[in-house]
Amino acid sequence: MVNRSAQDIRRLNRFEVLRRFHASSGPRTRQDLASETALSIATVSNLTSELIGEGVLVEVGQAGSGGGRPRALLALNADRGTLIGIDVAETSVRTELFDLALGEMAVDERPVASGDVTPEQIVDLVESGVDTVHMAAGSLRSRVLGVGISLPGLVERKRGVSTYSPYWAWRDVPMRDRLAERLGLPVHLDNPLKASALAELWFGAGREVDNLVVVMLRSGVGAGLALDGTLYRGATNSAGEWGHSCLVFEGRRCRCGNLGCVEAYVGTAGIAETLRSLAPGDPLLAEADALAAPLLTGLAARAAKGDPTAVEVIRRTAAYLGAALGNLVNILNPEALVLGDQVAAHLGERLLVETKAALAGHALAQPLRAVTLRLSSLPHDAVSRGAAALAFEGFLNDREVFGPVSRTRAAKARAEGHGDGRRPGRSR
Amino acid sequence: MVNRSAQDIRRLNRFEVLRRFHASSGPRTRQDLASETALSIATVSNLTSELIGEGVLVEVGQAGSGGGRPRALLALNADRGTLIGIDVAETSVRTELFDLALGEMAVDERPVASGDVTPEQIVDLVESGVDTVHMAAGSLRSRVLGVGISLPGLVERKRGVSTYSPYWAWRDVPMRDRLAERLGLPVHLDNPLKASALAELWFGAGREVDNLVVVMLRSGVGAGLALDGTLYRGATNSAGEWGHSCLVFEGRRCRCGNLGCVEAYVGTAGIAETLRSLAPGDPLLAEADALAAPLLTGLAARAAKGDPTAVEVIRRTAAYLGAALGNLVNILNPEALVLGDQVAAHLGERLLVETKAALAGHALAQPLRAVTLRLSSLPHDAVSRGAAALAFEGFLNDREVFGPVSRTRAAKARAEGHGDGRRPGRSR
Repeated sequence: MVNRSAQDIRRLNRFEVLRRFHASSGPRTRQDLASETALSIATVSNLTSELIGEGVLVEVGQAGSGGGRPRALLALNADRGTLIGIDVAETSVRTELFDLALGEMAVDERPVASGDVTPEQIVDLVESGVDTVHMAAGSLRSRVLGVGISLPGLVERKRGVSTYSPYWAWRDVPMRDRLAERLGLPVHLDNPLKASALAELWFGAGREVDNLVVVMLRSGVGAGLALDGTLYRGATNSAGEWGHSCLVFEGRRCRCGNLGCVEAYVGTAGIAETLRSLAPGDPLLAEADALAAPLLTGLAARAAKGDPTAVEVIRRTAAYLGAALGNLVNILNPEALVLGDQVAAHLGERLLVETKAALAGHALAQPLRAVTLRLSSLPHDAVSRGAAALAFEGFLNDREVFGPVSRTRAAKARAEGHGDGRRPGRSR
Repeated sequence: MVNRSAQDIRRLNRFEVLRRFHASSGPRTRQDLASETALSIATVSNLTSELIGEGVLVEVGQAGSGGGRPRALLALNADRGTLIGIDVAETSVRTELFDLALGEMAVDERPVASGDVTPEQIVDLVESGVDTVHMAAGSLRSRVLGVGISLPGLVERKRGVSTYSPYWAWRDVPMRDRLAERLGLPVHLDNPLKASALAELWFGAGREVDNLVVVMLRSGVGAGLALDGTLYRGATNSAGEWGHSCLVFEGRRCRCGNLGCVEAYVGTAGIAETLRSLAPGDPLLAEADALAAPLLTGLAARAAKGDPTAVEVIRRTAAYLGAALGNLVNILNPEALVLGDQVAAHLGERLLVETKAALAGHALAQPLRAVTLRLSSLPHDAVSRGAAALAFEGFLNDREVFGPVSRTRAAKARAEGHGDGRRPGRSR
């Protein structure tokens, strides 16, 4: 039961090379890439030739090399096409259009109605978002190489199905095919945990470390895992459901139905519950709606003025969060632990400082020394950026298999669903 | 920050090929290996040539192929040398001698004195064990290719140091060099979580699945992780400390000093504590010593006769264990969850059945469907077998680097400590 074919490795190495171009803005020689990735010059030359052949990389000039022969400078070919990343969240749909160098060209954000939402309504919102960013950027839809879409809940990536969405009580909705048909574009589906981890790998802390956990704190709570340098998905793409790990045995009822889940303490509803237990009549509770932003901004503002209730809510939230992060540190021994999304963006430094203290009371000394806890450098659009990276990876995987690989193996890889993008009408 | 050099991949593939020979007893053709590992025939031919060159594999005959030309049958060369696997636990040192086909030749188990134990005492016990198995098997020490030793607590593998041993209050003891010097043999050090996971990869459930968690339940509690087909170590080799993840926020004090750890509920001391809370004067509590076997066998025997206290202790232990395993299922989405070691061996089926029920109340439906919970098929010697596999992997890694890899890269890999065996007096 090996999952590491020569082709898998080539893919991982290809992404690793491409990520170097986002790590800093300048063009790079093959020698730079070899030293940055620890791959051999031969491997880098092979990979870059393929990427130049696909039009993904271009030569943009020559670097002198101290008297030796000049070396070609390579860069991402921004003009090769565009990518779209979409974050479908409980309360909004955020659509971003990127060039192939992952430079942002346009963004659109539109609210999702509260209450039950049908798949058709989401498809409509996505289509409007895609139309809007194209109009805003003056770019053509025919230039789109791929659309990455993050859907809340659990997603079965290979089949392109939303297997479970807690917000809208969806079960087994074949969203990829519906979206691909409506948009007329190749669609790659996953969930926000995977998208956040990809965003850190392509744009954030994952460029510097091999083992990273990015913690999403919004109304839903979960963790994206990048282990040994690559996105970890688990057996059925549902790894990272740390929000539904048990922190308080026989504790609060979580909306998943179980007791004591992390999400019931550090998600926005959990934070509101902590406030309610301290001050049942607090005016912020009246304001708290599904969006939760008023609750979080209210708590942050009052804590900054020293309001003891707000300070205590944040302290207790940090106590729970520190213990729950300690579990990730002890189980996974990562180098970086990144706090992302709404809760982290609004409660920021105060939450970080208190959480660090709480973490120290739960993580073992050795893995604690090995890890850095930080706020995400991508607090506002990690998921949509990660979704665009998903589309980029999907575009590369969907090209006919690169390099010296037999047709049989390529066919087998496709049959196994490694290339998971679905272009409407395309026979597989 | 790539960790996936061509050399790393070659190593992983080499282990994957070798593990096929333990998966069933018969010899195999290169075609069998290719189909079993999903590697190409070319890769398999390359790897098997190297392994034949090293004397690890031998041709043992020909298989007819339905009229085509005959194909060579390969097998592990049991006579190439021997391997030793040692499980240094809190209460005993178990030493096993294997031939290179991982067939057991002799075993020795000797008690460790209770209370504080010095590194020198452990070195003495290990040396006696190694002498004894050689005498028992009539085998020469000069035939030993490597010794794998599992030490309790945290081990920094590359430096060969026991950084923390909770039983004996060891900190930063350079055990590998001491042991290598005393034994005059190459020594590979790790901890029981890593050894258990390696044992499952080489001999157990890991031969069939890519994502596996083996849970060790003895006086210490932890999890060995085999993710995406390979042992997951984390940033500093301390991944898997699930026993010190928080299950009961602000719950029982654990011997690690923190509150509410899994180990404080499902380790042997935790089980005794649960019994004490139900029946403070229970005679089993008087008997319970560090070994804990009397407690576990007593509980199992009484529960089998329907004793309500014993039944309730096992039920509560399973309730805690199910919740804590649910965390692993939700976070890691494995295909197999294996219960190993003392607690599983003694409480067996009863614990398994009750734990399955409790797990269903904590794991999300999708990852729950994807996972099989089972008792280890290696309940008695997983750690020593895994330690022998560690020695085998270390032996292969320590050989001059196989295949078409530059000297520079080989030197770099060694400098990075990938070859981590230490033969006394060998300059590095």
